[in-house]
Amino acid sequence: MSPLFYALDLLGTFVFALSGGLAAARSRFDPFGFLVVGIVTGLGGGTLRNLLLDLHPIAWIADPGYLIACVVAAAATFAWARALESRLHWLRIADALGLGLFAVGGTQLALAAGTHPGIAIMMGVTTAIAGGIIRDVLCNQVPLVLQKEIYAVAAMAGSAAYVLLDRLDAPATLAAAVAFTVGSGMRLAAIRWNLSLPAYGGGRMGDG
Amino acid sequence: MSPLFYALDLLGTFVFALSGGLAAARSRFDPFGFLVVGIVTGLGGGTLRNLLLDLHPIAWIADPGYLIACVVAAAATFAWARALESRLHWLRIADALGLGLFAVGGTQLALAAGTHPGIAIMMGVTTAIAGGIIRDVLCNQVPLVLQKEIYAVAAMAGSAAYVLLDRLDAPATLAAAVAFTVGSGMRLAAIRWNLSLPAYGGGRMGDG
Amino acid sequence: MSPLFYALDLLGTFVFALSGGLAAARSRFDPFGFLVVGIVTGLGGGTLRNLLLDLHPIAWIADPGYLIACVVAAAATFAWARALESRLHWLRIADALGLGLFAVGGTQLALAAGTHPGIAIMMGVTTAIAGGIIRDVLCNQVPLVLQKEIYAVAAMAGSAAYVLLDRLDAPATLAAAVAFTVGSGMRLAAIRWNLSLPAYGGGRMGDG
Repeated sequence: MSPLFYALDLLGTFVFALSGGLAAARSRFDPFGFLVVGIVTGLGGGTLRNLLLDLHPIAWIADPGYLIACVVAAAATFAWARALESRLHWLRIADALGLGLFAVGGTQLALAAGTHPGIAIMMGVTTAIAGGIIRDVLCNQVPLVLQKEIYAVAAMAGSAAYVLLDRLDAPATLAAAVAFTVGSGMRLAAIRWNLSLPAYGGGRMGDG
Repeated sequence: MSPLFYALDLLGTFVFALSGGLAAARSRFDPFGFLVVGIVTGLGGGTLRNLLLDLHPIAWIADPGYLIACVVAAAATFAWARALESRLHWLRIADALGLGLFAVGGTQLALAAGTHPGIAIMMGVTTAIAGGIIRDVLCNQVPLVLQKEIYAVAAMAGSAAYVLLDRLDAPATLAAAVAFTVGSGMRLAAIRWNLSLPAYGGGRMGDG
Repeated sequence: MSPLFYALDLLGTFVFALSGGLAAARSRFDPFGFLVVGIVTGLGGGTLRNLLLDLHPIAWIADPGYLIACVVAAAATFAWARALESRLHWLRIADALGLGLFAVGGTQLALAAGTHPGIAIMMGVTTAIAGGIIRDVLCNQVPLVLQKEIYAVAAMAGSAAYVLLDRLDAPATLAAAVAFTVGSGMRLAAIRWNLSLPAYGGGRMGDG
């Protein structure tokens, strides 16, 4: 892994763990709750992907740097959650960058493991969203990503862009850069212009 | 895998994914929520079983057909959930067939991997019910199967029947047919005559 | 594994499964719900640890004794939950012993697999708390351990004590005994004197 990609990977983990810590603050967990939710949110997506693809050792088990990034994020949210909440906008932008990064990284790894392109896209999306889903389940809430946010769709677009460029024999760095731009860009656009997917059946079902 | 068994396996996956899509409709998820819940419900049980037994590659990772079955089911429920709900009775019957099929398939796989018969029964049950449990957790509801439905018990009966016949050296096809009939039959009977297990302590506990 | 350690491991599994059965009773599940929650609570932590470390076969898959311990515990809680609830104090003490035991066992296993000490501590904590987290998620409740109980912190202290003594080249038996005493002792002290961690932001956040 190149130093740049490693740094970005750690940063993505850190940002995701921050979102876990903020969720722990909203649920008024104790310090240990911040730690668990931070770790699970930061590492959950990549872990699930590796388990499914049987890729071992999992990165954070071989290299404690990932765990440390989560611990620092959890401690930071416990200390400064209020201040962080008031800078939520910046956090969401950082999270959007993590989203694109994780989608591309997960897709690359799956293709390198020889999976079908469709499965590789699914692995990219899994890497980007599974941590957040487990975070919401632990906080006893319906996962945000299943509702109306343009979040998983952005991960899917980024993953699909990578697969497409890979099939067209584009250089890996170019493919990664374009795919990251597509995934994170779509998410940033959704944040900027408040775009969302339609939830199912506005007022139609279960109203009778 | 014989073509017949493969077709049935895909069909079982499809039917389970439909139940996931319907749950997504009741929770008013966005299209992506239908996709996630459909996939997780359709593939969750077999995936957990394979992870526990360390059997790789997982069928749906090696063969995109399973994922496609889930995507089609999710799209169908998003498009026609209302119509499907009004035909819920037929869906429950199809689901009962999926139940028996997954229980038998999971048990067979575990025995072939050399597990103890008791563990093989548990793997059959896991294959049949884990997807539905994750579905309900994602929708932030207490899993149906833990409450009063005769569902998991039917899966257990089917799995146990297979193990018993296998120990008696019955031919695999005969054992599978009988076990499937036991599992799905018990579930269909529960649907037909509205049978259920007693929930714990009706009115006794926590009332004081 | 020494006979003593095996007996303790089975006992820890049994006690954790009891806590699962009691949670099932509070949620008024059916007999099968007791079984599922009991099994998941008793086996969940060790299973997750083994999956993460890619250690196969998982103990309870190779040796049905663990599954039997869970089934017995589930049956006992279904039969006598009321009586058990009135002896809750003793159960909590037994659970505290299970906590220390699982933390030490998980840490040992991770170190033997060659992980970094920090990862080994995390694996000890995971072994001790993951089953209870899944139990609470299945009962649709916010996991107790994330809130204010001194529970996971005790597991972490026990795991850290083991790692420290291991680094100091203490004999394994001595290290295990001391670490167990630290982990279970801290938990017992928390029960005895009603100690808890501060939850986040008492009255500060979200009140405006």
